[in-house]
Amino acid sequence: MGCGFGWHCRYAREQQAAAVVGVDISEKMLERARNTTHDPAITYIQQAIEDIDFTADSFDVVISSLALHYVAAYEVVCHKVYDCLKSGGTFALSVEHPVFTANAAQDWYYDAQGTRLHWPVDRYQAEGLRKTRFLDTDVIKYHRTVATLLNTLLAVGFSIRHISEPQPSPEIIEQYPEMRDETRRPIFLMMSVVKP
Amino acid sequence: MGCGFGWHCRYAREQQAAAVVGVDISEKMLERARNTTHDPAITYIQQAIEDIDFTADSFDVVISSLALHYVAAYEVVCHKVYDCLKSGGTFALSVEHPVFTANAAQDWYYDAQGTRLHWPVDRYQAEGLRKTRFLDTDVIKYHRTVATLLNTLLAVGFSIRHISEPQPSPEIIEQYPEMRDETRRPIFLMMSVVKP
Repeated sequence: MGCGFGWHCRYAREQQAAAVVGVDISEKMLERARNTTHDPAITYIQQAIEDIDFTADSFDVVISSLALHYVAAYEVVCHKVYDCLKSGGTFALSVEHPVFTANAAQDWYYDAQGTRLHWPVDRYQAEGLRKTRFLDTDVIKYHRTVATLLNTLLAVGFSIRHISEPQPSPEIIEQYPEMRDETRRPIFLMMSVVKP
Repeated sequence: MGCGFGWHCRYAREQQAAAVVGVDISEKMLERARNTTHDPAITYIQQAIEDIDFTADSFDVVISSLALHYVAAYEVVCHKVYDCLKSGGTFALSVEHPVFTANAAQDWYYDAQGTRLHWPVDRYQAEGLRKTRFLDTDVIKYHRTVATLLNTLLAVGFSIRHISEPQPSPEIIEQYPEMRDETRRPIFLMMSVVKP
């Protein structure tokens, strides 16, 4: 869900998925996904994530990587994913971390010399729209707290299996020293949940 | 666990608990707890939380309110609580929020006029000891990430039932306007988990 150029769709097939459906709202991205996917077992659908309408109990796994913080209707999506998963099926999702999205600036706090002093958190409990800039473009995101992200999944019926706040490994930091800042605040929240 | 002056012990009895055991490392606190508790169904034990050694499957509920961020052996505690709970029993715990404990200063970031600009997060992924000051006293705390707090409970065998990052209600903020800052960053993480 939010498959973009289709990387995770092709990855799922490499991991022996029998068939994969990729959903994305952007026809431009799907065009590139189709052009780089030569696999009849992968289908792409142009659709907003919150509009999915799949057969109940039909999927083993649903993946959404760094897409749902762009979607207002998080609870609707959780319900729809729950419905289309088989019993025992997994929903693996990641979003920008609430610590990352809370403050609308979504940037480090710098001193006068341009040194990153720390990551500023503000408006954490004020869930909802955040207007941010990314590569000179206005971007709309939706901030939700950790509690809301998890409790919504629980209320829909999912069991939580694992949480991750990924960080670069020591080897990666050795190779790219500037990545050390990625250990100073969480940037992503990943959740693996199961339909009982 | 970490019952201090015994408030939660007395509260549990008011909620019809048949019997309550309160554990705290501080004999001073327990002395005051005993002096304000006139109830033969409440027992106080002077012990470090990580040293508890109760009969397996013997409790319906274990509560630990804002104590475990002072304890290094979080995983040991989770194991021991799991063991002493009956099947279907609840472990309700709260800790200072990882957003609160990450930065050793554990204070707002102020401008030159003393205005609270934001809450600074740093060293989030560096779990472990934090030396802080509280009311002119050195205090040792242990910072853990959200992922570690939850995954440890899951690995021990608990199911997560509900998460809370409490904030003051609009009525409280109306009454105490300075409490509005408590909505700017999460201060507590509360977790309710069940032994299946």
